[in-house]
Amino acid sequence: MNYNNRICSLFDIRIPIIQAGMVWCSGWKLASAVSEAGGLGLIGAGSMNSEVLKEHILKTQKATTKPFGVNLPLIYSDIDKHIDVILETGVKIVFTSAGNPVKYTSMLKQNGLTVIHVVSGLKYALKAQDAGVDAIVGEGFEAGGHNGRDETTTLCLMQLLLDKIRIPVIAAGGLYSGRSMLAALALGAEGVQIGSRFAVCTESSAHDNFKQAVIESQEGETDLILKSLIPVRMLKNEFYTLLKNAEVNGANPAELKTILGKGRSKKGIFEGDTKEGELEIGQVSALIYKRESAKDIVEEIWNEFLERKAQISLL
Amino acid sequence: MNYNNRICSLFDIRIPIIQAGMVWCSGWKLASAVSEAGGLGLIGAGSMNSEVLKEHILKTQKATTKPFGVNLPLIYSDIDKHIDVILETGVKIVFTSAGNPVKYTSMLKQNGLTVIHVVSGLKYALKAQDAGVDAIVGEGFEAGGHNGRDETTTLCLMQLLLDKIRIPVIAAGGLYSGRSMLAALALGAEGVQIGSRFAVCTESSAHDNFKQAVIESQEGETDLILKSLIPVRMLKNEFYTLLKNAEVNGANPAELKTILGKGRSKKGIFEGDTKEGELEIGQVSALIYKRESAKDIVEEIWNEFLERKAQISLL
Repeated sequence: MNYNNRICSLFDIRIPIIQAGMVWCSGWKLASAVSEAGGLGLIGAGSMNSEVLKEHILKTQKATTKPFGVNLPLIYSDIDKHIDVILETGVKIVFTSAGNPVKYTSMLKQNGLTVIHVVSGLKYALKAQDAGVDAIVGEGFEAGGHNGRDETTTLCLMQLLLDKIRIPVIAAGGLYSGRSMLAALALGAEGVQIGSRFAVCTESSAHDNFKQAVIESQEGETDLILKSLIPVRMLKNEFYTLLKNAEVNGANPAELKTILGKGRSKKGIFEGDTKEGELEIGQVSALIYKRESAKDIVEEIWNEFLERKAQISLL
Repeated sequence: MNYNNRICSLFDIRIPIIQAGMVWCSGWKLASAVSEAGGLGLIGAGSMNSEVLKEHILKTQKATTKPFGVNLPLIYSDIDKHIDVILETGVKIVFTSAGNPVKYTSMLKQNGLTVIHVVSGLKYALKAQDAGVDAIVGEGFEAGGHNGRDETTTLCLMQLLLDKIRIPVIAAGGLYSGRSMLAALALGAEGVQIGSRFAVCTESSAHDNFKQAVIESQEGETDLILKSLIPVRMLKNEFYTLLKNAEVNGANPAELKTILGKGRSKKGIFEGDTKEGELEIGQVSALIYKRESAKDIVEEIWNEFLERKAQISLL
């Protein structure tokens, strides 16, 4: 039986745990494993061209009959080709991020899709709600990868959103445990989107060197940098230090872009170059200490959530 | 009847809401009002010399028979005089912050005081626990005023602390509502320390201009700066812009100190110069929209907490 809230009804899933779409981590293997476990798996289209995306969608459809979705960063250059693939393959759920939800939402909705937009602040959430999306992901400062400029943490963002937003809200950023899931639902969220913990799991397509670097990392070893370009949270490695020193010494956006170059996240996350690559991960990196399957992650979080929920009412 | 947890037992208070010690805000009026309302009021010694501190302690003792405490930043130059006043006046509870808990904890404990230490990260919490403190305040990135370098948010910090710390933990940073209090307790904290919301209340000794600036502020209008000195979160005003521009242009710590000068927080918070003063406040500034009494704040948070706790068990 599905858990009784609007997020589970919207996606027809049993457990309101959404696996974040992540570059170089979330292909068909991860997405289908999470969906099979009762959550919602997402294929991360941000690191795929349209042919690769199509292949991953078809493989996911083969691997599971359960609902899954595609995460689509709207700043992607080949966005129209991606949308063609999504419509052609009959994908039912799209999470849009990193862009303006006004442009695509009504077209996607007219084609029968469920549309969720990822935001980092209240003003973007209001805009997405006005654009007609079905739900919102509110992603806090502690999340890995690309992030907002206002640096609102998940705890503050949830309080801001849940005062003003009528459609269902999914919390993202800093969520690792069943207890944190209960905290998000206590704030009024109806689901959680979890990235980092799934980035390291067995079914993630990230390189083993990347997974090992995350497992070994401690508190304070991620940082949000490149605030004058697009802020991004990553592990502090040699490549990070190069960028950070340039920032501290007053480098302008053009100079930072030159240092950044192309393909740094592929190099770090997919090819496993933990020195020269960009290792995108959230603050919960410090909490991750083991390799697990996607199924074990979903079940552990869900069981801890249910157990803690029973306890808290007695507190 | 006291709420049944270790924080209420430790302080002998009814409601596990602690009002943060805050420079230029939390004198005897605020501390006694919060204690009278059933929480724990703290006198913020960071902006007082020893004579002023003594006066505020004596006035608090006259205004309430309920437990209250003193917040003592350990970097304060006249720390030994402050401690003499605390022992002489029979204060029972001390929250130490911004320094090494090893130096003073055992002496304070030997004198019969309850000692709590404020930390921004797990390694400091473990050190404080080893030093023998009775409880820990874990303060996240979103908190106002001085803050840690690791930028761990309250949500992540609680998950890190509550895996490893055996003594009671109080959550701080980003806490505004009863829902957020429930979130903190869901994570395993046993109390909340709230600053910003009390900074603006009737009994706060802050200038009305400061309170008005906080009430009018929106999401994204605080920032954590001065990371090469001591990181501090403040409202983005003219003084902030001066500092930020210097930082972005690569100013070194000595240059930043010169711009900072002396008495900037007094100028902003106590004297009400909202352009040239330092307006220390947390991210929840964006959630604060009204003037209230300390009693109303404690009661509203507590009632919302109890109501939401009853709901969540049914979710």
